[in-house]
Amino acid sequence: MDGRRLSGVLCPVITPFKPDLSPDAEKFVAQCQWLISQGVGLAVFGTNSEANSLSVDEKISLLDALVAAGIDPQRLLPGSGSCSLADAVRLTAHAVQLGCAGALVLPPFFYKPVSDGGLYNYFSEVIERVNSTALKVYLYDIAPLTKVPLSPDLIGRLVESYPNTIVGIKDSSGDWSNTEQLLARNWEDFRVFVGSETFLLQNMRNGGAGCISATANINPAPIRRLFQEWQSAEADTLQSQLNTIREIAMRHPMIPTLKATVAHFSDDNSWLGVRPPLVSLSSRYAQEVVAELIQNDFDMPGLGSSRSG
Amino acid sequence: MDGRRLSGVLCPVITPFKPDLSPDAEKFVAQCQWLISQGVGLAVFGTNSEANSLSVDEKISLLDALVAAGIDPQRLLPGSGSCSLADAVRLTAHAVQLGCAGALVLPPFFYKPVSDGGLYNYFSEVIERVNSTALKVYLYDIAPLTKVPLSPDLIGRLVESYPNTIVGIKDSSGDWSNTEQLLARNWEDFRVFVGSETFLLQNMRNGGAGCISATANINPAPIRRLFQEWQSAEADTLQSQLNTIREIAMRHPMIPTLKATVAHFSDDNSWLGVRPPLVSLSSRYAQEVVAELIQNDFDMPGLGSSRSG
Repeated sequence: MDGRRLSGVLCPVITPFKPDLSPDAEKFVAQCQWLISQGVGLAVFGTNSEANSLSVDEKISLLDALVAAGIDPQRLLPGSGSCSLADAVRLTAHAVQLGCAGALVLPPFFYKPVSDGGLYNYFSEVIERVNSTALKVYLYDIAPLTKVPLSPDLIGRLVESYPNTIVGIKDSSGDWSNTEQLLARNWEDFRVFVGSETFLLQNMRNGGAGCISATANINPAPIRRLFQEWQSAEADTLQSQLNTIREIAMRHPMIPTLKATVAHFSDDNSWLGVRPPLVSLSSRYAQEVVAELIQNDFDMPGLGSSRSG
Repeated sequence: MDGRRLSGVLCPVITPFKPDLSPDAEKFVAQCQWLISQGVGLAVFGTNSEANSLSVDEKISLLDALVAAGIDPQRLLPGSGSCSLADAVRLTAHAVQLGCAGALVLPPFFYKPVSDGGLYNYFSEVIERVNSTALKVYLYDIAPLTKVPLSPDLIGRLVESYPNTIVGIKDSSGDWSNTEQLLARNWEDFRVFVGSETFLLQNMRNGGAGCISATANINPAPIRRLFQEWQSAEADTLQSQLNTIREIAMRHPMIPTLKATVAHFSDDNSWLGVRPPLVSLSSRYAQEVVAELIQNDFDMPGLGSSRSG
């Protein structure tokens, strides 16, 4: 897909840990294979992946494991941003070397407030140092966590300087008016992904490219279906069904809830582990969430089947 | 100083970069030697050091250079916290191995809000994994940037679990009432450092241990003097003189201003370089700051003397 740009539904894959909190590469590969079977791409090392709780070495090793297992790197959009310029360059360059479809790049998020000029310099340094025409950067704006928003003017400057490299954004501002502003800029073939499937239909109707959403970890095929059928008469009904599931999944802290749900439906409690500062969901809450999901005809077909098969 | 605890004035040393933005170890060593000659300890890899903009490898290499140059590791309190558990453990363990007086440990700062339980787990994991009685952890609360405050209850729990390891804090909340709450807890021999010399006299009068302050990069000896003479009749006058200098230094973004000041007084413009997302101070502002400092009898005696000597 070198030269092509992404669209569709991608999943910020949750990261399984062993009891000593080291990443479980084997389980990670199996989970990614299941997600691909459900029709979604892999935005590994996102917020939901606890990516910032991992070292660059750990991320490189997981990425290598996916490719070694035969996963098409063109389905991969690894998160590679970091507060550290050196770390961001190293992981981004590795993703390019493996042939990944792109890299989803967070701004540095320790200093705040920072100027647009400083953020421009950061992205520019990453691009210049990776120095590859194969590099496709998708910006990652998750201001509710980073407290470092990416302004439309900054993005415009970057697109103008690097039209073949700065090719899209994941907008996790949680604010539709922000997404609308980005879409209105109409940068050539610029791919706008919303960070929640709540906005998927609205995004598609306004020229967006899809979504990269936490909930794709547990509900990938239905989200993918709305992406494919957004022009159908059923689209609003599909959107409403997605919203119901998301609302249940977001009632408690997001990442521990996703892990508890996967643990239940794969019958594998090792999924419950999180790295600090996160804490696992209490079993009481986990049971409540799962019960409510099942009441809403929720299922994760085929998950963990290789284990029981 | 193994077993002993720190007090006094420490400097979060600014990091010099080469034109390619790699750290300049030689210049860093010389700067640290000058700071020690001024009577302050070295809290390298703090906020003012752009520590989160460096990789762990870069920090390990700089720390090794200081010790190789003969700097007493007991004058060193490197910052070693990170969002990544693996990175925090690696750098903290290296500091212990070199015989550093302690490690100044930030909480993970990507996720927010996080629970006290999750933060407890983070610090606990770092301590258990480093697994050394020589480890002395000074917590680093800089909530204005991290947005992750460390509550007195959390600190109390940590002190109770690890009384010989959790030995102090740098309070950069910028809020004296927060420092007061910490001092009031009266944990045994717990060292409370304020993050600004503005609060140094107040801190000493209330049982505090000193300060770890940005301004120690440019005004180390006078800050050190107040620490030594805080019980003298001149103390309030000394505090007031420090406040005047600090106010001038904080008029523009802090780190670029410190670097511009050091560049001027060492006659070495390579100090101006910062890593993105920071941007260097404009030469107009730099000239204004320096002129105003000089009007207030400011000097940096001996700085850069090895270059011209």
